[in-house]
Amino acid sequence: MPDETGVEQLIELLARLPGLGPRSARRAVLVLLKKRAQLMAPLAQALAEVALAAKDCRVCGNISTTELCPICANPARATGEICVVEDVADLWAMERGQVFRGRYHVLGGALSALDAIGPDELGIPRLVARVADEGAHEVILALNATVDGQTTAHYIADALAGTSAQITTLAQGVPIGGELDYLDDGTIGAALRARRKL
Amino acid sequence: MPDETGVEQLIELLARLPGLGPRSARRAVLVLLKKRAQLMAPLAQALAEVALAAKDCRVCGNISTTELCPICANPARATGEICVVEDVADLWAMERGQVFRGRYHVLGGALSALDAIGPDELGIPRLVARVADEGAHEVILALNATVDGQTTAHYIADALAGTSAQITTLAQGVPIGGELDYLDDGTIGAALRARRKL
Repeated sequence: MPDETGVEQLIELLARLPGLGPRSARRAVLVLLKKRAQLMAPLAQALAEVALAAKDCRVCGNISTTELCPICANPARATGEICVVEDVADLWAMERGQVFRGRYHVLGGALSALDAIGPDELGIPRLVARVADEGAHEVILALNATVDGQTTAHYIADALAGTSAQITTLAQGVPIGGELDYLDDGTIGAALRARRKL
Repeated sequence: MPDETGVEQLIELLARLPGLGPRSARRAVLVLLKKRAQLMAPLAQALAEVALAAKDCRVCGNISTTELCPICANPARATGEICVVEDVADLWAMERGQVFRGRYHVLGGALSALDAIGPDELGIPRLVARVADEGAHEVILALNATVDGQTTAHYIADALAGTSAQITTLAQGVPIGGELDYLDDGTIGAALRARRKL
């Protein structure tokens, strides 16, 4: 164990990141100490800067260093399509897909009776108001294929029933590169039910 | 992919830590953003502080925020025993063992013809001078059981032949809790050759 309180505290903090434990945090600190100028100092600065500047986009809830996130501020993104996601991580995943060209709405979670997360905690009334205000013609529910995610999707679909927007959801089926042998029964069933003509 | 340059740069820097890739760095940044006050700001500060303060102990080469590391500065540690290790990580590993009560000498690597690391790069002349100066009675070579580590051990043993210090090395054998079935042949052979009376 390192005797230095500063080094020890740094290890303890790094070990709290997902994917790092005490052992890998120690290894990371040694690498950081060897690359003080190239890695450690820039990392300290980047963390401090983002910690200060990061806020939620006031329109969609995406993480941003500006009042309006780069997606909401981009005039090339279609305004009539709103993709609803649970988390910023899901927004990033959608963006990596490079298919969607509309705007997002980040809920910040899913409805959960266990965790006492209701429609107000997720800002669903705000989403309904936004859809009406912007006159969106499509709302794509890109929520996780979990019980909570699907409950939330159904709740939002009901809440949006009064608007003119069409409500859609992501297709379920065999993932690209997926081998049937390794898929769970639920996915196989969903893919079979949603089969299409070739 | 996050559009924010600050967040993107943070992910890119974190992904360079051992044990983290681009995907886990993204997850780590999301956790950091959720715990801005409790984790992100303290981590930024700890990194900046250690980056500024950390230096090599001028006696043993251990990482320290003081001129003399806490081990070298501790009068309770025996001065006559010097444990030679390749890296600070090895020093930490030895300390976790809580058996050794002497001082250390960190080489900063092992001899390697491939990487052009010779005795001068490792400061072996400085080690020889230190052993003579301190009148050490034992030098324990705790180097890795690799080809480079063992080459280095033999080189140091030769270099210290002129001093009065006894040269020892860590025992090799079956690790505590080790199952013979899972051990490599080299370890079994070494353990058999070094067998002792019960």
